[in-house]
Amino acid sequence: MDAVTRIERALSAAIGLAEGPGCPPRLAQAMRHAVFPKGARVRPRLCLAVAGACGDDAPVLAEAAAASIELLHCASLVHDDLPCFDDAATRRGRPSVHAAHGEPLAVLAGDALIVLSFQLLARAAQQAPARLGALVTVIGDSVGVPRGIVAGQAWESEPRCDLAQYQREKTGSLFAAATAAGAAAAGADAAVWRLLGDRLGEAYQVADDLRDAVEDEQEMGKPAGQDAAHHRPSAVLQYGLSGAIARLEDLAAEAVAAIPDCPGASALRAVILSETRRLLPRKLSASAA
Amino acid sequence: MDAVTRIERALSAAIGLAEGPGCPPRLAQAMRHAVFPKGARVRPRLCLAVAGACGDDAPVLAEAAAASIELLHCASLVHDDLPCFDDAATRRGRPSVHAAHGEPLAVLAGDALIVLSFQLLARAAQQAPARLGALVTVIGDSVGVPRGIVAGQAWESEPRCDLAQYQREKTGSLFAAATAAGAAAAGADAAVWRLLGDRLGEAYQVADDLRDAVEDEQEMGKPAGQDAAHHRPSAVLQYGLSGAIARLEDLAAEAVAAIPDCPGASALRAVILSETRRLLPRKLSASAA
Repeated sequence: MDAVTRIERALSAAIGLAEGPGCPPRLAQAMRHAVFPKGARVRPRLCLAVAGACGDDAPVLAEAAAASIELLHCASLVHDDLPCFDDAATRRGRPSVHAAHGEPLAVLAGDALIVLSFQLLARAAQQAPARLGALVTVIGDSVGVPRGIVAGQAWESEPRCDLAQYQREKTGSLFAAATAAGAAAAGADAAVWRLLGDRLGEAYQVADDLRDAVEDEQEMGKPAGQDAAHHRPSAVLQYGLSGAIARLEDLAAEAVAAIPDCPGASALRAVILSETRRLLPRKLSASAA
Repeated sequence: MDAVTRIERALSAAIGLAEGPGCPPRLAQAMRHAVFPKGARVRPRLCLAVAGACGDDAPVLAEAAAASIELLHCASLVHDDLPCFDDAATRRGRPSVHAAHGEPLAVLAGDALIVLSFQLLARAAQQAPARLGALVTVIGDSVGVPRGIVAGQAWESEPRCDLAQYQREKTGSLFAAATAAGAAAAGADAAVWRLLGDRLGEAYQVADDLRDAVEDEQEMGKPAGQDAAHHRPSAVLQYGLSGAIARLEDLAAEAVAAIPDCPGASALRAVILSETRRLLPRKLSASAA
């Protein structure tokens, strides 16, 4: 079974917990809206790719780790779109969760997705109970304090903010968790796999800043020009357009170089090369060609 | 060391993770504001009391479970107070988190406290790794979907809502988790301990509805009359004042009867009796005397 099928199946099973008897139906609808139809699923594909490179001897746990990371990513988007943050009416080309379901259910859907990410891990860890502690720590630390997504988002409420730290926490942390959790789910040492995810996460954030600067709302599927509009830190504002493109290329090369020795290293290298080539916005890669 | 000291020490250590280097200082302040100075700590005291009755052979894990449950309770209060829910300006006799720190940091502090509750468990479970799965499941299920606090709160967004189910999820679920997690942390069977927490949780919710109906804002430390103002389900609205008092007394008796056989059963019975006697609002116990 290919990675995308494994991921969608694991996410469906997770949302199924909300759609079973007993759950308020509108909350379940808001959660499904946040997770489906699928986004790029970049982080869970990365998680499964690393688990595969490390032997993938507990595939149910690897799938739960991948789904857990995607649920946390979706939760962060739902809360980021709230009126008190970006106040975004659209996401992935359709109404954001709060625009479609109201602000109360958007707050609650985000909360429920965060909790669900840990409920999933605990259930799947029956396959390899000794690995649960590392997985909860790796994934929890990438979302919470002191240096996870939530901490990254909170830098927007501080009078001063370091761009590199902001992006490392807001985006890089969950990429680093994706590679580390893929390794941990397969019983490998999580720590040596963080650098790969860290570099990819920063590359992904720079690419997102580039898209925000050069694409319009229809191309992005969400409001464009948000960084400038909200005076938010952005690689394009900091380095200029060509500087940000050069930074993206450096980060992609560093990611490939960061893959640790393992049985599946060369196959993984090919995956990472293909993923990073897709990061540059089409408009810029066309003009560069 | 007494239970209150153990709980406050564990909560301080948890919030210390947010106050260490690297975390946005205003987020750390908002999280501290949500957790200190102490509330009644009813749920974590219940958790430690059950762990004690079951032998408490992994005290660090029991303290983490107790702190985890209190962090989740605090997170739910922070999010409940948001403008899109109760829009409460005060809590525990002082400004609510969003009133003091703004809405963005209130959303993020709640999110970070939810994640922190699982980070704590994973760290403490090094003392007894085989117990982590049961703890994350018991605690996660009590907060998320399909029947945890978040699901309970989401019933307010449904056209129809069953009062018993609403209160069981919104309050009872975390009480049931407190007793079940206390047992799980001590290596005992969690399932047989749920009924005690379930009965106590419903008693606590009925007492809260009574306070909301008969006390003023100064006595409660938060806005009074919220249930009637928001047309919210409430035991007082459903049963009347004397009916709600009778229901509270029945639930307290059922809680005491639900304590499973264990070495510390009689000591625990005394704790439960003393806790339930304190639930009736002073104004009503004075007029009843």
